[in-house]
Amino acid sequence: MIFVTRKERFNAAHKLFKPEWSEEENLRVFGKCSNPNWHGHNYELYVTVKGPADPSTGFVMDLKKLSAIIKSKVIEKVDHKNLNLDVDFMKNKMPSTEILAVAIWEQIESEIRTSGCTLHCVKLYETENNFVEYYGN
Amino acid sequence: MIFVTRKERFNAAHKLFKPEWSEEENLRVFGKCSNPNWHGHNYELYVTVKGPADPSTGFVMDLKKLSAIIKSKVIEKVDHKNLNLDVDFMKNKMPSTEILAVAIWEQIESEIRTSGCTLHCVKLYETENNFVEYYGN
Amino acid sequence: MIFVTRKERFNAAHKLFKPEWSEEENLRVFGKCSNPNWHGHNYELYVTVKGPADPSTGFVMDLKKLSAIIKSKVIEKVDHKNLNLDVDFMKNKMPSTEILAVAIWEQIESEIRTSGCTLHCVKLYETENNFVEYYGN
Amino acid sequence: MIFVTRKERFNAAHKLFKPEWSEEENLRVFGKCSNPNWHGHNYELYVTVKGPADPSTGFVMDLKKLSAIIKSKVIEKVDHKNLNLDVDFMKNKMPSTEILAVAIWEQIESEIRTSGCTLHCVKLYETENNFVEYYGN
Amino acid sequence: MIFVTRKERFNAAHKLFKPEWSEEENLRVFGKCSNPNWHGHNYELYVTVKGPADPSTGFVMDLKKLSAIIKSKVIEKVDHKNLNLDVDFMKNKMPSTEILAVAIWEQIESEIRTSGCTLHCVKLYETENNFVEYYGN
Amino acid sequence: MIFVTRKERFNAAHKLFKPEWSEEENLRVFGKCSNPNWHGHNYELYVTVKGPADPSTGFVMDLKKLSAIIKSKVIEKVDHKNLNLDVDFMKNKMPSTEILAVAIWEQIESEIRTSGCTLHCVKLYETENNFVEYYGN
Repeated sequence: MIFVTRKERFNAAHKLFKPEWSEEENLRVFGKCSNPNWHGHNYELYVTVKGPADPSTGFVMDLKKLSAIIKSKVIEKVDHKNLNLDVDFMKNKMPSTEILAVAIWEQIESEIRTSGCTLHCVKLYETENNFVEYYGN
Repeated sequence: MIFVTRKERFNAAHKLFKPEWSEEENLRVFGKCSNPNWHGHNYELYVTVKGPADPSTGFVMDLKKLSAIIKSKVIEKVDHKNLNLDVDFMKNKMPSTEILAVAIWEQIESEIRTSGCTLHCVKLYETENNFVEYYGN
Repeated sequence: MIFVTRKERFNAAHKLFKPEWSEEENLRVFGKCSNPNWHGHNYELYVTVKGPADPSTGFVMDLKKLSAIIKSKVIEKVDHKNLNLDVDFMKNKMPSTEILAVAIWEQIESEIRTSGCTLHCVKLYETENNFVEYYGN
Repeated sequence: MIFVTRKERFNAAHKLFKPEWSEEENLRVFGKCSNPNWHGHNYELYVTVKGPADPSTGFVMDLKKLSAIIKSKVIEKVDHKNLNLDVDFMKNKMPSTEILAVAIWEQIESEIRTSGCTLHCVKLYETENNFVEYYGN
Repeated sequence: MIFVTRKERFNAAHKLFKPEWSEEENLRVFGKCSNPNWHGHNYELYVTVKGPADPSTGFVMDLKKLSAIIKSKVIEKVDHKNLNLDVDFMKNKMPSTEILAVAIWEQIESEIRTSGCTLHCVKLYETENNFVEYYGN
Repeated sequence: MIFVTRKERFNAAHKLFKPEWSEEENLRVFGKCSNPNWHGHNYELYVTVKGPADPSTGFVMDLKKLSAIIKSKVIEKVDHKNLNLDVDFMKNKMPSTEILAVAIWEQIESEIRTSGCTLHCVKLYETENNFVEYYGN
């Protein structure tokens, strides 16, 4: 079993804000992340797949194909977008790094499986100081 | 003459958008950076001052003081904010990295001068691939 | 189960030196790390906690709270300090990266547990080339 | 159980190319990585060992010794070399990052074991965007 | 005057080798960089242009356009290529980082000038430890 | 004229402390940097030389030679040392980053000149957030 990781990037706006809470309550829980007019990040996304190396190519998975899946299923939907307003797979979800990482897993898992490989981990950096890892359950 | 640099960070939302232009014209010129619902970045800001080293302390400028100036004049105003909507010193300005770097220079130059030092450069990273330097004229 | 990591930093002096050994024996085992007058590092500390995301906030653990625990229990005690002489939780311990990582785990584990989360990993970089991970046993 | 990692680097040329395939088939499968006249990378290699900390030294394994094993068994053989042509332990193997990581494991595992420690992971970056991890089976 | 920088990357093979010298003389002068079967690098290229910010767009130069010039004139010619054998603008030149940086300047200078901007600096990293800057004369 | 830079590293302890001041005065001016029992850093040193490229080798200066000068004149004297106590060229000097950068310039300038090249800049990082540049006067 070998683990292969591809890194992609996207820049997006978001806020952490529950509309059913008052602005004060949002501020108390989410701090400056609840600022009504949004803020944003340069997100860094690491997708890890696992499997044996194909004896013919030496590849666990063609990284051009893995990159294409990540780009079509995730990056095109979130890059230069607003995670609260613009992203179909985040509708009605809190755009915390945790929830976003799980949603990205769900976006790409089946297509990676269909291609004959196994998704192992989605790792998502919000800033250089904060990141999340999700292994599927 | 010695040059000393302090790095600070802020996370902000923005869009590149001229209201007097149509959405199509904005898209043609600014591309995905004109997305109406904003996007954002982890900005990295490097402020360089210059001068002789104080023979008593060995400092060109106390970096605690330089950091405090940058934080009070810039970071507190832009961090977790919307550069188009929330920032007094960016009102009616296009929040390109170029214009933002010049505006940051103007925010901090006089206070650094008052403290007896000379501002040399404002360097601002929007992403790991794009950055701007401004030397004051 | 989601894993969330917070990065903090501290700058400290130390030496690897056993007083019951001769200086020659220390030099033989620890090399230049045994220099009597100390050396130091910019340590980078990654603390990973795990748990489910709170359905209300989207958080595994509020990173402001995690950061506050790390700062009060670790950073304030080691930053700009001498790991051999100044740090209560390192008294009579060899300040190798391994021992330091374990000691940091013991400093923060119970408070993270009390806050309703689970400590997963302490990862500590001594230099860009050397780091240690500890998972609790 | 504590995990300790040492990072080393090497610069090498390679191509992904199967001589029994036509140039067109190589191009279809390997893309620009099949360019006949080679290309190259600054590889970054992370070797992780695990074990208890020695109560006397505080070390899982002396990193000077781990570094010396990596250098003699791997770096001296691959640095500033051609992975397809010059490296004894890659003869008749496809120099993909996956196959190279497994081959590096096999180069160093027994000597690390002989020294009383256990190899845990070989992690190999080909570029900042692509890396492989191998845990031994 | 504002300075704007765009970073691009390429992976290439090369060797430092003068055919009119013996292999011993090449080895004496160029060390392991003269290995006959090539080695390679992940090059990082920073191109800096300068000018005033356009009052309408806030841009010194549209970075999409600058990136397109760099890609068509440089990256497509050197990425996944052999700098000694495959690159028209390096024919009969020693592919040291110095000579390569100057050649990259000559590749892009006129097209940047034609687009109404001024090339200021080409900065080229061969490794994290070695880089070259060229300002045009 | 081409500029070539070599990066080296060292790990050292220091404190900012004037013995003729009281501990309180030292604390007021230097803050936690005056901690009596020292602290330390992973310093990163960039040395830039300038000159024309040798038409035969393509080199401004052989980086193996530049690295050897930096190592013999600087790194061997400061690495794993105490900057206040152990370093001949820092005796009776405040080990601020500014003073240290100037002292490093003075350590290497003549030998670089003797080798036929010109020292352009010494850049010294104390942390990722603080660095100093010195150009010789």
